[in-house]
Amino acid sequence: VPRARPPIASLDASLIASAGLEPAAIVGLANELADEARSILSAHFRRPAAVEYKSDRSPVTAVDRLTEQTLRDRIRARFPAHAIAGEEHGFDGSDRRCVWVLDPIDGTKAFITGVPLFGSLIALLIDDRAVLGVVEMPALAERWVGVCGRATEHDGEACRTSARESLSSAFLFATSPSMFRGPDRQRFDAVSERARMTRYGTDCYAYGLLASGFVDLVVEADMKPYDYLALVPVVEGAGGVITDWRGDRLRFESDGHVVAAASATLHAEALALLAG
Amino acid sequence: VPRARPPIASLDASLIASAGLEPAAIVGLANELADEARSILSAHFRRPAAVEYKSDRSPVTAVDRLTEQTLRDRIRARFPAHAIAGEEHGFDGSDRRCVWVLDPIDGTKAFITGVPLFGSLIALLIDDRAVLGVVEMPALAERWVGVCGRATEHDGEACRTSARESLSSAFLFATSPSMFRGPDRQRFDAVSERARMTRYGTDCYAYGLLASGFVDLVVEADMKPYDYLALVPVVEGAGGVITDWRGDRLRFESDGHVVAAASATLHAEALALLAG
Repeated sequence: VPRARPPIASLDASLIASAGLEPAAIVGLANELADEARSILSAHFRRPAAVEYKSDRSPVTAVDRLTEQTLRDRIRARFPAHAIAGEEHGFDGSDRRCVWVLDPIDGTKAFITGVPLFGSLIALLIDDRAVLGVVEMPALAERWVGVCGRATEHDGEACRTSARESLSSAFLFATSPSMFRGPDRQRFDAVSERARMTRYGTDCYAYGLLASGFVDLVVEADMKPYDYLALVPVVEGAGGVITDWRGDRLRFESDGHVVAAASATLHAEALALLAG
Repeated sequence: VPRARPPIASLDASLIASAGLEPAAIVGLANELADEARSILSAHFRRPAAVEYKSDRSPVTAVDRLTEQTLRDRIRARFPAHAIAGEEHGFDGSDRRCVWVLDPIDGTKAFITGVPLFGSLIALLIDDRAVLGVVEMPALAERWVGVCGRATEHDGEACRTSARESLSSAFLFATSPSMFRGPDRQRFDAVSERARMTRYGTDCYAYGLLASGFVDLVVEADMKPYDYLALVPVVEGAGGVITDWRGDRLRFESDGHVVAAASATLHAEALALLAG
């Protein structure tokens, strides 16, 4: 017999108002940015692109840079004072209260190998708190939008995490086992061994699937702010819980460890194994 | 300066004629089967489905069984004497020369977690040699068809593997690190450490992407005949090389180790590390 599920915790939208912004205005801009990313990336997917490798061996293409620059220009035109932090073009802007955080291609490895699971990530931070997040999947034409004070939407329809509360029945996702080194690997393995199954290779898509109730748990490490900040409003607005491995709220300067769960109970069970 | 690439080795279609079959007829039936699988699986994707777990802990649903039975019935109606071997309903049929091999859902884990990378695999063996193979991706509406004597087609257009010849520049794929146990793990790791990058989570899709030139190398273990036989004509008809880890041709009774490469040179380099 399924138990009644608690309502999604009320997410306070007052921070958005305190910055002089309307939720509809920032969601509207975020959707325009996602439309733009979808258009550019769909046009370049599976087309020849020169791939360079950064100092951490991660790949980057001219398409990453073009997409990010296009998004930056649109934000700059609309909110000239807001700061912008992007994976490829760094940080600029005078108003440090409002910071847009962009990852033009999350899953560049997927993008350059013809796998349609790459995404674009768009977040707005106010006072270092993610109040809006978009997970846009250009090649799949799917999108999740989360914003404080509203339910997360998947392609325009409210979505909800699964009711899964036990790790032994949970579907666990991570992008790659190579994310986990030393003690991180041991802690991840402790979670993975207890989960119903573990699957790799999904980047940001796993968090969208978690918001829609298909995936129960995502555990990752070695993430950048561009990789995780947009996920926070998406997961929380669908009834999930997302923190670092100590259980703390994700901020720009968090240490790159992320655990997202369909329920508070499942989150606590995973955290007990991850916090060390 | 790119070197001229050798033509794809001529694949002998005489085996098909020796069994009294026309290539066009078996390709036509295979496409009908793939259409049917696409229709059923698309309709059930992301719908509630009871999941059972087999003795090896792999998941199966009623949709797997329904799809396979539908395909069996169509084959039976067209070629009553041909044998049929399917992952869910076993082996039957009197003519052991011609054997259809079916995997209704390759990537059931993807299917039940909302990831659109599951496929349907259809192969025809004549005298234990795969003469026809289909990789059908229902949720992505993509299909690869390989048949002896013709170039592999991706969505109706001839495709070709990449020209990559060196492991150090190769994109390596595998479904999951959990496929590799004991010495298998050490051998896979030896390949992975030398590859440009390794990515997980793709099941049969990786072989289609290899046939289309996006992925250079796929190394897997713990595979069943249903998982690998359809891949052989797809990869070979695109100019690639696919064998077991000893370099032997894949047959129904092969031991489940598979290495597929974009070129003979790359295949040889991987095989030297895998053969032990």
